[in-house]
Amino acid sequence: MKIERVERILSKMKEQEMPQMIVSDPVAIFYLTGQWIVPGERLLALVLRTDGKHHMMINKLFPQQEDFGVDITYYDDIEDGVEIMTQFLEADKPVGIDKIWPSHFLLRLQELGCGSKFVNGSQIVDKVRQIKDEEEKELLRISSRINDEVMAELIPYAQKGLPETELNKIVRDIYTKHGCEGVSFDPITAYEKNAADPHHVTDGTVGKKGDCVILDIGGMKDNYASDMTRTIFLGEVNDRQKEIYEIVKEAQRRGIEASKPGNKMKDVDLACRNYIEEMGFGEYFTHRTGHSCGIEDHEWGDVSSVNEDIIEVGQCFSIEPGIYLYDEGIGVRIEDLVIITDDGCEVLNDFTKDLIVVPFEG
Amino acid sequence: MKIERVERILSKMKEQEMPQMIVSDPVAIFYLTGQWIVPGERLLALVLRTDGKHHMMINKLFPQQEDFGVDITYYDDIEDGVEIMTQFLEADKPVGIDKIWPSHFLLRLQELGCGSKFVNGSQIVDKVRQIKDEEEKELLRISSRINDEVMAELIPYAQKGLPETELNKIVRDIYTKHGCEGVSFDPITAYEKNAADPHHVTDGTVGKKGDCVILDIGGMKDNYASDMTRTIFLGEVNDRQKEIYEIVKEAQRRGIEASKPGNKMKDVDLACRNYIEEMGFGEYFTHRTGHSCGIEDHEWGDVSSVNEDIIEVGQCFSIEPGIYLYDEGIGVRIEDLVIITDDGCEVLNDFTKDLIVVPFEG
Repeated sequence: MKIERVERILSKMKEQEMPQMIVSDPVAIFYLTGQWIVPGERLLALVLRTDGKHHMMINKLFPQQEDFGVDITYYDDIEDGVEIMTQFLEADKPVGIDKIWPSHFLLRLQELGCGSKFVNGSQIVDKVRQIKDEEEKELLRISSRINDEVMAELIPYAQKGLPETELNKIVRDIYTKHGCEGVSFDPITAYEKNAADPHHVTDGTVGKKGDCVILDIGGMKDNYASDMTRTIFLGEVNDRQKEIYEIVKEAQRRGIEASKPGNKMKDVDLACRNYIEEMGFGEYFTHRTGHSCGIEDHEWGDVSSVNEDIIEVGQCFSIEPGIYLYDEGIGVRIEDLVIITDDGCEVLNDFTKDLIVVPFEG
Repeated sequence: MKIERVERILSKMKEQEMPQMIVSDPVAIFYLTGQWIVPGERLLALVLRTDGKHHMMINKLFPQQEDFGVDITYYDDIEDGVEIMTQFLEADKPVGIDKIWPSHFLLRLQELGCGSKFVNGSQIVDKVRQIKDEEEKELLRISSRINDEVMAELIPYAQKGLPETELNKIVRDIYTKHGCEGVSFDPITAYEKNAADPHHVTDGTVGKKGDCVILDIGGMKDNYASDMTRTIFLGEVNDRQKEIYEIVKEAQRRGIEASKPGNKMKDVDLACRNYIEEMGFGEYFTHRTGHSCGIEDHEWGDVSSVNEDIIEVGQCFSIEPGIYLYDEGIGVRIEDLVIITDDGCEVLNDFTKDLIVVPFEG
């Protein structure tokens, strides 16, 4: 068990008078134990208790080699795992439930009368996961450093104007070459009008001279995600494209500037959004400014205009404003990951944000 | 809506005195409406009611173009979808809940006091889906016919002894070429000792002369799965391999023979298992004999030694006994899909089950 992380959870459980909680999300279990166990549809549960009597339920199909500091009960497919688990819970007390636990497990627990009250316990875990510890910060830095290199290696393929589907495959291969486990999300490699359509699905479109190209990519390195976007231009750039690019770049700079402890999450969004609005393109910035990032590319905690949460030291999130002019075939987005520090933030990406026009070799 | 399918569900709901049910599994919703809606972590719910007042809840991010015969309420990310849904439920009556509905939705529904009792409603849907209608049978036949062709096209690559990882990619490309949406599960292309390890993960192993090769493959064609296994031999076959092969082949024939209405699911398993045991290899047949198949490769209803359910006309399942002698590097499995008919079953795969020794070209 990652003792310090578990302690942070337990302390919040005590505050909320939740004496016990069932964690079932494999990502949260990895976060708390260091073990990846992916049980498919089968019951997997880490019971956390404020009295320290933690316990874990795992199907026999997933035997653990390593002792990671919590007692484990194995059950098999013909046993009732939930019923077995009740002996590790206090039936007359409230139980925190993992938000993604399949309902049939919860219904069975309720049928067995185990728990005086059932509440969503995931908010506690999500809030703790939002504040990265030193080990996590270092892993996020390493992952994003690789992402800078991957971007540099990808651009020469984009300047050939290769079909989006091919670029999509190439970027995956580059992450593999860099020792990544894979991509952290389906890469976006979109030309011209496609770049201007945030719902575009990668297809066979090829690049042409004068196209903007959005490259929104991220990898998984040692279980931590990276996520960065750059927009480049093929062969030439016109004044309109330049204008849009510089507005997005300045908006993103303002978002970074607003990313500091004490501000609200919405302040980061509004720093970007207000500037884009002032410049006359408000209606073309059609999404939230960013999202939290860690073991998953998208974690709990949006950078959106309605998120009133106060920013805290140790948070990691993306800042990715964009302007999408579909009719003109212009789409520009610029994105970095940041980690909040005592007096501002550390930007995890070093790749230049200067406007880049690459030679068109298509 | 697929009226006849919905009627079958409603009739079982009435039998079980369940006046209303929430269906959230995108596969079940596709089965009942013909529409694929994949909402990720967002609420998606088809409320089925025995009084006919069905209703659907969909996030605004997934607008439906087509009218498929059910009223839809769209909600957005800042609204409480579950609360909105309560107006389409009767608060003082029992509610069937989808087994995979994330718990936080169910907790919210309970908090709102909507429902006098909450029960797992999925068994009804699973049982109805188990009995394929004529449209589904035809789609399953087409999908398996393609699978026969894919097997024939894959074998020449296996006889070159290409790395398992390469075979794995090639088989995917072959399905694409045949107009399939993709594979129905991660293909198994395993040589020698790897063929003898049912937990083997595809790796860089190459084929050698004398190897057995397990090819366990399936595709998705028009949303219906195929699934077939053949075991071939590279360049030569020895007496021991031949002996094992013929035992598995006869076991599988007996499984097919036992697949008829009125028998129990376990009879099919035992027909295979008892013969393999008689031949002295019982301990080396380490898995159940098969699984139901349809829109998903694995659907509810195992062909296992403990399944007492009576086989009914219209079921589709796999029959796939195997013998795995890891120390000798011999693994053999043979698998077909069948559809239950009035007096037996229709085998969906035509690919030969005679012992095949291909020239080794590695």
